[in-house]
Amino acid sequence: MKTLIRNGLTGHRGGLRHHRRRPPPGAMPGTLVVDADAPPPRLTVLAYGPEDSTEEQVSDLGRLDELCREWPVVWLNVDSLGDEPLLRAIGEHLDLHRLVLEDVANLGQRSKAEFYDDVLFIVLRIPHVEGGDTEQVSLLVRDGLVVTLQEHSGDCFDGVRDRVRHGKGKIRVRGSDYLAYALIDAAVDQYFPVLDDAGLALDSLEDQVFEQPTPETLARIHALKRGLVSLRKAIWPYREMLNGLMRDAESIFVDETQPYLRDCYDHVVRLIDLVEAQRDVASDLLNMYLSTVSNRMNEVMKVLTIIATVFIPLSFIAGVYGMNFDPAVSRWNMPELGWALGYPAALLLMGLVAGGLLAFVWRKGWL
Amino acid sequence: MKTLIRNGLTGHRGGLRHHRRRPPPGAMPGTLVVDADAPPPRLTVLAYGPEDSTEEQVSDLGRLDELCREWPVVWLNVDSLGDEPLLRAIGEHLDLHRLVLEDVANLGQRSKAEFYDDVLFIVLRIPHVEGGDTEQVSLLVRDGLVVTLQEHSGDCFDGVRDRVRHGKGKIRVRGSDYLAYALIDAAVDQYFPVLDDAGLALDSLEDQVFEQPTPETLARIHALKRGLVSLRKAIWPYREMLNGLMRDAESIFVDETQPYLRDCYDHVVRLIDLVEAQRDVASDLLNMYLSTVSNRMNEVMKVLTIIATVFIPLSFIAGVYGMNFDPAVSRWNMPELGWALGYPAALLLMGLVAGGLLAFVWRKGWL
Amino acid sequence: MKTLIRNGLTGHRGGLRHHRRRPPPGAMPGTLVVDADAPPPRLTVLAYGPEDSTEEQVSDLGRLDELCREWPVVWLNVDSLGDEPLLRAIGEHLDLHRLVLEDVANLGQRSKAEFYDDVLFIVLRIPHVEGGDTEQVSLLVRDGLVVTLQEHSGDCFDGVRDRVRHGKGKIRVRGSDYLAYALIDAAVDQYFPVLDDAGLALDSLEDQVFEQPTPETLARIHALKRGLVSLRKAIWPYREMLNGLMRDAESIFVDETQPYLRDCYDHVVRLIDLVEAQRDVASDLLNMYLSTVSNRMNEVMKVLTIIATVFIPLSFIAGVYGMNFDPAVSRWNMPELGWALGYPAALLLMGLVAGGLLAFVWRKGWL
Amino acid sequence: MKTLIRNGLTGHRGGLRHHRRRPPPGAMPGTLVVDADAPPPRLTVLAYGPEDSTEEQVSDLGRLDELCREWPVVWLNVDSLGDEPLLRAIGEHLDLHRLVLEDVANLGQRSKAEFYDDVLFIVLRIPHVEGGDTEQVSLLVRDGLVVTLQEHSGDCFDGVRDRVRHGKGKIRVRGSDYLAYALIDAAVDQYFPVLDDAGLALDSLEDQVFEQPTPETLARIHALKRGLVSLRKAIWPYREMLNGLMRDAESIFVDETQPYLRDCYDHVVRLIDLVEAQRDVASDLLNMYLSTVSNRMNEVMKVLTIIATVFIPLSFIAGVYGMNFDPAVSRWNMPELGWALGYPAALLLMGLVAGGLLAFVWRKGWL
Amino acid sequence: MKTLIRNGLTGHRGGLRHHRRRPPPGAMPGTLVVDADAPPPRLTVLAYGPEDSTEEQVSDLGRLDELCREWPVVWLNVDSLGDEPLLRAIGEHLDLHRLVLEDVANLGQRSKAEFYDDVLFIVLRIPHVEGGDTEQVSLLVRDGLVVTLQEHSGDCFDGVRDRVRHGKGKIRVRGSDYLAYALIDAAVDQYFPVLDDAGLALDSLEDQVFEQPTPETLARIHALKRGLVSLRKAIWPYREMLNGLMRDAESIFVDETQPYLRDCYDHVVRLIDLVEAQRDVASDLLNMYLSTVSNRMNEVMKVLTIIATVFIPLSFIAGVYGMNFDPAVSRWNMPELGWALGYPAALLLMGLVAGGLLAFVWRKGWL
Repeated sequence: MKTLIRNGLTGHRGGLRHHRRRPPPGAMPGTLVVDADAPPPRLTVLAYGPEDSTEEQVSDLGRLDELCREWPVVWLNVDSLGDEPLLRAIGEHLDLHRLVLEDVANLGQRSKAEFYDDVLFIVLRIPHVEGGDTEQVSLLVRDGLVVTLQEHSGDCFDGVRDRVRHGKGKIRVRGSDYLAYALIDAAVDQYFPVLDDAGLALDSLEDQVFEQPTPETLARIHALKRGLVSLRKAIWPYREMLNGLMRDAESIFVDETQPYLRDCYDHVVRLIDLVEAQRDVASDLLNMYLSTVSNRMNEVMKVLTIIATVFIPLSFIAGVYGMNFDPAVSRWNMPELGWALGYPAALLLMGLVAGGLLAFVWRKGWL
Repeated sequence: MKTLIRNGLTGHRGGLRHHRRRPPPGAMPGTLVVDADAPPPRLTVLAYGPEDSTEEQVSDLGRLDELCREWPVVWLNVDSLGDEPLLRAIGEHLDLHRLVLEDVANLGQRSKAEFYDDVLFIVLRIPHVEGGDTEQVSLLVRDGLVVTLQEHSGDCFDGVRDRVRHGKGKIRVRGSDYLAYALIDAAVDQYFPVLDDAGLALDSLEDQVFEQPTPETLARIHALKRGLVSLRKAIWPYREMLNGLMRDAESIFVDETQPYLRDCYDHVVRLIDLVEAQRDVASDLLNMYLSTVSNRMNEVMKVLTIIATVFIPLSFIAGVYGMNFDPAVSRWNMPELGWALGYPAALLLMGLVAGGLLAFVWRKGWL
Repeated sequence: MKTLIRNGLTGHRGGLRHHRRRPPPGAMPGTLVVDADAPPPRLTVLAYGPEDSTEEQVSDLGRLDELCREWPVVWLNVDSLGDEPLLRAIGEHLDLHRLVLEDVANLGQRSKAEFYDDVLFIVLRIPHVEGGDTEQVSLLVRDGLVVTLQEHSGDCFDGVRDRVRHGKGKIRVRGSDYLAYALIDAAVDQYFPVLDDAGLALDSLEDQVFEQPTPETLARIHALKRGLVSLRKAIWPYREMLNGLMRDAESIFVDETQPYLRDCYDHVVRLIDLVEAQRDVASDLLNMYLSTVSNRMNEVMKVLTIIATVFIPLSFIAGVYGMNFDPAVSRWNMPELGWALGYPAALLLMGLVAGGLLAFVWRKGWL
Repeated sequence: MKTLIRNGLTGHRGGLRHHRRRPPPGAMPGTLVVDADAPPPRLTVLAYGPEDSTEEQVSDLGRLDELCREWPVVWLNVDSLGDEPLLRAIGEHLDLHRLVLEDVANLGQRSKAEFYDDVLFIVLRIPHVEGGDTEQVSLLVRDGLVVTLQEHSGDCFDGVRDRVRHGKGKIRVRGSDYLAYALIDAAVDQYFPVLDDAGLALDSLEDQVFEQPTPETLARIHALKRGLVSLRKAIWPYREMLNGLMRDAESIFVDETQPYLRDCYDHVVRLIDLVEAQRDVASDLLNMYLSTVSNRMNEVMKVLTIIATVFIPLSFIAGVYGMNFDPAVSRWNMPELGWALGYPAALLLMGLVAGGLLAFVWRKGWL
Repeated sequence: MKTLIRNGLTGHRGGLRHHRRRPPPGAMPGTLVVDADAPPPRLTVLAYGPEDSTEEQVSDLGRLDELCREWPVVWLNVDSLGDEPLLRAIGEHLDLHRLVLEDVANLGQRSKAEFYDDVLFIVLRIPHVEGGDTEQVSLLVRDGLVVTLQEHSGDCFDGVRDRVRHGKGKIRVRGSDYLAYALIDAAVDQYFPVLDDAGLALDSLEDQVFEQPTPETLARIHALKRGLVSLRKAIWPYREMLNGLMRDAESIFVDETQPYLRDCYDHVVRLIDLVEAQRDVASDLLNMYLSTVSNRMNEVMKVLTIIATVFIPLSFIAGVYGMNFDPAVSRWNMPELGWALGYPAALLLMGLVAGGLLAFVWRKGWL
């Protein structure tokens, strides 16, 4: 049961724990705490213009500058964050504030957007489709250049890459701001299938609650609810972030991209609606579970009461005629035992008592 | 029981599921995901001026332009959204942003109003009278032209059509903004009968809770409550939408139409009040149900306790005199069995014990 | 029990139902749905100036104009709203927007204040002292003229009428704005005795909860709580309304009347405080009830457990010595039966067992 | 138990009732409803300047004017509000708005600050140290004059009087605004000891909950919680009041006094924090109580179940061998009774059954 | 168990009690209530510039001025607050408002930032790592000078001292505003390990709830939850404080330091997220505990019911055939006793009844 809960949608333990890698209190701001066991980073560049696109692995940041000169938009993706010197090199190359580097390396940030001179720094939290945890992807946007930095390889940006490679839609004719939007949008849309899964899980749990509630059902509802709480916590900051981008980032997002940001904001609002609705349903299921269990307990108690109520008095009567008072001593001592119809009379008495009690129980509506 | 819940007012499963038809994450914005099984669309035009009105089915969008030139106000209604080329044709004809088309086709939007240059794009969620689900109707308002797009034929706009056809009230002397208002108002008013039904259901459930609560009652209250939650979720965005229209849409809604928008806003506020009140009542009913069940359980326990408390000691006494110690061996062995009045004395003892216990129970107030 | 609940303070069913009389969805705005069974309306005019006042019944609206010319302030009261032509006549005479007329006729509005050119339209919800429902009174305020429209005759304005008739205080030297304030104030103050009654009911229910809680107590607390919820819903909009009047109605309420509005606002805030406090107390009483019932159940269970715990083992011992194994066959078969002190020994054993169990129960603190 | 609750910290009944003395609905604003049984009022004046101070009882308001001319700051304290003519005389003397007089006389106002021309009118609610109720003190502040009006003699201002009399601190060199601040501050600080008492009561109740919870414990926690709710309601309005004074009362509170108001505001925020924390603790204690009781019930049920589970089957076995089937008739009739080791075998069987059941109970973890 | 709770993470009693040392109501503002038993204060100065740093203990405040003249930034740390004359001397030396001194000495303030002319006064609440209580540290920031005042020696600023001593990072090239930021940041970061501990405690409690819930588990969850509530209360005011510093303290915090404040604000927001998440988990654990206990009770009841339901009827049958009616008197009296297969038939009957009841129980799903 515990496996279920911990590997379930929610992974709350991960949720509570993934903030652990952190500089100690009092440490210098800009301290990077990297995971020494991380695989070596891979730097992939996807550069494109209206006509064409090119992809290559780079190992030298100088090459990046060349590409930036050649192509209208360059997208650099860094796949692993375990290499502190590389991070610092990127930081220097792009002239980043050291706090930006700290936020890139020290995972566990909330989704947010911050301006540092001509660089827009965006943190995205992206859900794992199979688990309930979220991953941090950092975005650096500058005129003509977008850098994405992520802890693990394998991401939700393949759809965007495809659109760039094959020139689908308008992505190749737009600038780096549109690419940034497309990446944010892909991150946001990633939440939909996760919530769909949660919806399916809720359906199946609802069936269980109505048909065969077990303590495990309870544990799973709790786990699901907790997962929804943690998704909610990941989605909410997007709202504020997109609001901020629409309000303050006019220098970066051109007028033509603004409606797309608003559309993305709409998606976030719908996600929030959805996750709130599912949380309500999960809470309701918990109450239903408890009510169902309480109803069953009630039924159990009724059966016990009916059986005990009917048979305890009968047993008493049988007990009375099982007493050993000696009828031979006096005619007051259990004369019934010597009656010709004593036994049938006793059985009749029992039947009447049982009937009366059943009638009482019936009238109470317990049957 | 489950049928009841799922076909009840609420249809929450539909509610959680109707967001499924959606482009995959990373897909190009403006991707339309249409339902291939939808019936072919029907385009109906209702054009009118102060003096007269005309209705016709059109199949060519060019005809629409002619009508727009002939009549002060033209209302185009599209009945089914399964035909992607048609949607794209309408989009091009009206010069719509591709995000508008996406929102029209991908159902599951919240009620909202958005401006795209000279077009006002409005999404309405309209409740099904018989079920608990809501349907999306999109509204495009431009000077002299209103387009409504809906998934299913059969809508709540027949009252408005009648007013146009027969020239009731002032609708024919006003412009397209008044028509848009009339359609929004019809959508909002559609919630009243749905909430009235919910009120009747609450009344009947209250009777059940007081008279004969069953687990099914519980399930129905839960279902009703969930339905109210989903109605609430559908109604709330109207508030924001109407606020926005009153505040920002002066270019479209002329001064004379403004008081009508405010009236419509008042209706929404009353709907919110009503749905909140019903939700409170439903919550209260849930608590009442649980209290009632708990009270009954209490009563069951009392009966069990009284029966057991009275008869268990009596049975013990009978058991004692049913023991087989041999009085012949010594005069200490169950001499009572040989007393002349032993049996009556034993019955008397039982009677006294029973009386004492009943008195105890009585004093406790359990009878 | 149900009678109690439904005729109690709350009348929630009325509360949920009195919104029924309403035009159908899609109907023309301004549609009046009047109650055909209502008594014929009575139009009473009370006109006054600093020196004198006069009262008369009018049947012709022309007479109203004459009075307006003669007296500084004219107060027209309409007592029943069943006469649609009359309502329309008043509307035309005062040049009212058709939406105002709709709100006057279609009861169930929230308290609110709206401006239509030079007319201030106010809706007041006034509680019935004896029941828990609220009634709608509409107020039209124009320079020198106040019109009140109410569904039923008999209102809470008699105090104001008296002050006008006998020239008490400054009411006759002030204008129509002060009269409007006085009427709003009377409506607000009407809630105090209703809440006082609720306070008394809470006191009596608290006594019941502590002394003799019955399921009926529960039902009455629930009913009271629901009544308080509905009063709260009626009072809250006053706050917004008075805020609006203080902020925006300077053209109607002169500087000298402003402090009175603020005083009225203070009363509303105190009413809200009071109703919230009573709701808290009612919620607490519900919890107390449940706790008390749970405590009693606990006590019942303890008695059952003590009786059963003590006597079931004793009965078992008696049962053992009631077995019929034949001591004659071997000396292993129930030799106790043949002991000279077998019976006293058995009783002693029972006594010891009973004592031990009672000691156990005592040590557990269940006695 | 009830005495405890009602005389406890909370006095909620008083809380709900002390709003009773009130003019009837529809009454003229400015109507004073005084308590006819109140003792005759005492007017005490404390006048001071940087150098000296004087105290005297005055009976003539003319004397007040003289003092005002002689001393920089005059503080008039009125001790009882039962004398309507005196109140009206004060009102006229100070040229007060009649609504101010109404609020002074009709107790039950919330803490608030209002400006009437050059007079600042402040209502303070001050807690009784020994009980849970609050008392209203009205403050009128004008240049050089502070008037305090209270229902009962005996107040929390003795500390301030002392500072004035002995010229401690800077109070004598400051103006009437500083005196007003000092009085407000004394009123606010009065809440600290009351909350300290509540904290001690919470500690003692926590001990009871863990060691010996009784229904009385429950009642006392409820009473304490209700008292905290009513204190909270009394403290909150101070926040708004002080905010208002800091924001709008620059004409009265000079720059040098502003930091003191901010300090006072800080105290109020800490009081609110404290009372919220205590309310949380009280709610937690309620839950702990219920959980503890439920745990005990659980234990009771387990004992019952173990006893019944073990002995009921044993009694059945004994019952079987107590049947009277006649072994003489056939060798199938209870041959065990005639076995040489029948009785030991039966006891062994019982022992095995009991052992098995105990093992089952043990494995379930119920021991 | 109580020890656990009180010495646990939360120390709520301390939390509710550490506000006790406080001037009496009505006392002069600026009254210092110091702890007479506190150790003598230690004044340590750490002065630094870009090139070098020096540390010394000072006893004379005149020396402070010298250091201020010599070094760009001087940090004075005062370790104990028991010496009232010293506090007053510092106050005079720095020309502090007496209310600042009052807040420094009277512990129990909330975190806040206040401006007094050219001095920024900041209160920090810092958590104890080992316990659940928080300590107050006051910060005075002036151009070139930072003073920290704390009740106990031993603090969380050692990391900052190290950075100054060894010139790590940029701390030595920045001014006193950066030092103030570094101290605030160290205080904020101190909460992370405390919340990590709480996370670990939650994990261990979750294991207990699922594997072996005891009443002690309940008590510990409650204690933990209370501790989280008190941490939350300590963290929240930081948010407002940092907002205020970013908004209003431009005169003190130079542009280069602003991003650091924003970073610090981000940390606070994440702490709030974290503590809210943990509170949710703790609440959930409480519910899980109750549900688990209720499930177990349910199981107990089922076993009792099954045993009683099966054996009570069997015992009744045995009781019937244990009655002593005399078969010799008539052929109606218990003829079964004389049947050749009477005993086997009775056993068979019992077997059938038992089988039937078990089948009933099975069908109910109670096994």
